[in-house]
Amino acid sequence: GYGRTGVLYQEDGVRGAIVTDDGDVYTASEAIVQSRLRMNIDATTSTDQGVDFGGRIRIQWDQGDDETTVAPGYVYVTASGLTVEIGNSNTAYDSAALLYNSEIGVYSRSFGNSRGDFFAFNTDGYPSYDNTVDLTNQRRNDYMGVMVKYAVAGVNLRASVVDPDQVYDGLGGDDEKEYSVSADYVWNDSVTLSAAYVKNGAGIDDNDQYLLGAEYAFNDKTDIGLLYIDNGEVLGDDSDLGKTITLYGSYEVAPLTTINGYVANNSADSNETDNAFGIGGSYDLGGAMLAGSVQRGYNENITADMGVQFNF
Amino acid sequence: GYGRTGVLYQEDGVRGAIVTDDGDVYTASEAIVQSRLRMNIDATTSTDQGVDFGGRIRIQWDQGDDETTVAPGYVYVTASGLTVEIGNSNTAYDSAALLYNSEIGVYSRSFGNSRGDFFAFNTDGYPSYDNTVDLTNQRRNDYMGVMVKYAVAGVNLRASVVDPDQVYDGLGGDDEKEYSVSADYVWNDSVTLSAAYVKNGAGIDDNDQYLLGAEYAFNDKTDIGLLYIDNGEVLGDDSDLGKTITLYGSYEVAPLTTINGYVANNSADSNETDNAFGIGGSYDLGGAMLAGSVQRGYNENITADMGVQFNF
Amino acid sequence: GYGRTGVLYQEDGVRGAIVTDDGDVYTASEAIVQSRLRMNIDATTSTDQGVDFGGRIRIQWDQGDDETTVAPGYVYVTASGLTVEIGNSNTAYDSAALLYNSEIGVYSRSFGNSRGDFFAFNTDGYPSYDNTVDLTNQRRNDYMGVMVKYAVAGVNLRASVVDPDQVYDGLGGDDEKEYSVSADYVWNDSVTLSAAYVKNGAGIDDNDQYLLGAEYAFNDKTDIGLLYIDNGEVLGDDSDLGKTITLYGSYEVAPLTTINGYVANNSADSNETDNAFGIGGSYDLGGAMLAGSVQRGYNENITADMGVQFNF
Repeated sequence: GYGRTGVLYQEDGVRGAIVTDDGDVYTASEAIVQSRLRMNIDATTSTDQGVDFGGRIRIQWDQGDDETTVAPGYVYVTASGLTVEIGNSNTAYDSAALLYNSEIGVYSRSFGNSRGDFFAFNTDGYPSYDNTVDLTNQRRNDYMGVMVKYAVAGVNLRASVVDPDQVYDGLGGDDEKEYSVSADYVWNDSVTLSAAYVKNGAGIDDNDQYLLGAEYAFNDKTDIGLLYIDNGEVLGDDSDLGKTITLYGSYEVAPLTTINGYVANNSADSNETDNAFGIGGSYDLGGAMLAGSVQRGYNENITADMGVQFNF
Repeated sequence: GYGRTGVLYQEDGVRGAIVTDDGDVYTASEAIVQSRLRMNIDATTSTDQGVDFGGRIRIQWDQGDDETTVAPGYVYVTASGLTVEIGNSNTAYDSAALLYNSEIGVYSRSFGNSRGDFFAFNTDGYPSYDNTVDLTNQRRNDYMGVMVKYAVAGVNLRASVVDPDQVYDGLGGDDEKEYSVSADYVWNDSVTLSAAYVKNGAGIDDNDQYLLGAEYAFNDKTDIGLLYIDNGEVLGDDSDLGKTITLYGSYEVAPLTTINGYVANNSADSNETDNAFGIGGSYDLGGAMLAGSVQRGYNENITADMGVQFNF
Repeated sequence: GYGRTGVLYQEDGVRGAIVTDDGDVYTASEAIVQSRLRMNIDATTSTDQGVDFGGRIRIQWDQGDDETTVAPGYVYVTASGLTVEIGNSNTAYDSAALLYNSEIGVYSRSFGNSRGDFFAFNTDGYPSYDNTVDLTNQRRNDYMGVMVKYAVAGVNLRASVVDPDQVYDGLGGDDEKEYSVSADYVWNDSVTLSAAYVKNGAGIDDNDQYLLGAEYAFNDKTDIGLLYIDNGEVLGDDSDLGKTITLYGSYEVAPLTTINGYVANNSADSNETDNAFGIGGSYDLGGAMLAGSVQRGYNENITADMGVQFNF
């Protein structure tokens, strides 16, 4: 697991303003302390045939939670490079290589990430997701995910299915089955190619998305990459979340010191600007890392962060 | 702890149908994936006098839970074969030898089990119990259990008291104190005799139950047993849950491969049939186990399961 | 962590009586079993520069909880004797030396403790606090605490700030920032001096409190101490919780056997008597401890306890 803490700045407030029934307006702070502690509890066993069985439960505290969350678990089986995860599993699209590689700063954020909704391992209990357009927020008990992944000779293949409610069908809400696949290939430790596709992302009918990405790494700390992301449809409106093109890179300017950045273009109609960008830096303490970033989003607001992360 | 996953089939649906206010009917799936991850956290210490003190907290995720549960704990003291558990303790009746020995399949189920309501260690927070007849469902914060057990020379003796609410009396609901005792004896690793009695099971007045059981084990994997269970009264009606007679056995048909089964007769008036039965099999992977079963219940519906369990 | 269990007696009931809408009165038991299990999960790492980073999450079950609580966490950094805690941090006032040294019995209670409200590490999720006068009970998600402490040559210095809501200001309730400082000095392992001050305790405006304390230890088991505590204002009424003077001591009457006690005088107007006192004893089992006490409070009621505590 890991821990991190720092200061988060968000122009116009880290959350929206609260308006009371009397019309009083309370605006949110523009700068807060934001921290996280994540601990994974893994339990495993191996059979005489060399098959590994295991399970994972995640304990995570995020500043703002009034109690630490103990996430739903998943069970997995691994043999000969093939792994099957069942329950609160990871998903193929969320696990795609490069998808999050443009992230910078101590909180690992980027406007060059996918804006689409899709399922992933649920850290805070079964999926409570916000769609950026229709604001549906549904919590489901009978969520069931399965992911199969296979690794061989630099190639990773993954496929997953998530049934948002495996007991009742059609109860309302976005409860289509989500299907996703992803594949990536690493050549000579320097070139990475990644492709991923998800159908009915987050259980929303026709919310299909894909990712194409390529990265070239000069060495461990210096690389450059390009992502093309179709962020999917929302409620059948093809244009809502648009396409995103993200160019990112990092460069080791001095021993232990890395700068990184990205520029992203997104075509969603709701944007005030279609261009977002960010620049960040990190300093390796050996077991911990100081990091920070300044980014500007599609709403033309600036956000910045500075803090420390440590792994254990 | 352990993990397990598999497929559960239940004729007529794994849960009841949902009928909306508009009269729409949503039937439950007949087959779902069902998984569990259980981890026990034990903390112990020993004094200079050879007395052991300890405590247990259980973390468990069951597929269908939207968060992993951290069960209430209990504290225990052990010295010279005598153990006292206080808090969310085990109970004498639930701990009786043989009581669950007719269970088969990957989910350890049997219609030859007791149908009665009684307290046990609460995995999902303090007791939320369903009585099969009056559907009382009560959650109590001030639950307090104590179990004393003593082991010597093949004999196990247990006694427990559970006060469903140790702070207020008579607030309503089923809040009688539950008393239970159990005793068992193992002779020569082959013959096991077990007897248990519970008064006011699950805090329900006059819900008295008892168990008599005997088992003969030819070896580790092959045995035969007989249980006689009085499932208790519910709301003072002596006939509701009836008596159960269960004959069960298991047989190692080949190395690592065991088949098992049971037939049970229950005299409850609400049964569509008084006879239930099940047959199952398991294959030992060494550290894990493949298992499955087919069973028919008192409502004449078939249920089946197939999956894998592993211990860690 | 530790575990403990025992019997708690409280004259007039461990809680208040419940009066139903029909006018029925249910009085609480005067004696109950009270237990606790506490486990701290600490995760740490050290950088090449000798800086320690870490985080703590506490799992605690108290008898009466219907589920075990996983407390919000905090992150800390330590270097050269200086420690900074961020999140659900400890506070300077609550960490003051001697503040809790008059506590006796298996549940570590004393009427000679501070009666004031101030923030501390929150074991049961973010602060749900009761003010003894205005009965405000508020739960806040966006609580944020920071404590800095420094230890050198027998001197401990601490300062903390708690913002009850770091995102919105003035939403109502007691949401002032709490500031506290404390300092203590230990001379020759025998004399301890302690001073602490808190402003806006528990986020309540003008709820300022302070502590002055001194203790002389003849040896590990035998000591005597004196505390002077200003318990602060509540809602601007200077007299409500009064001042407390506590004289306490402990004495090893035989090997492993210690008796302890205190007398306390408090000047709050609401007292039925201004004098409280208690006497207790403990017997060291080596890894565990038998302990008990009898105490009389400011309402002239007697409370007593007897039980066992063990550490792991």
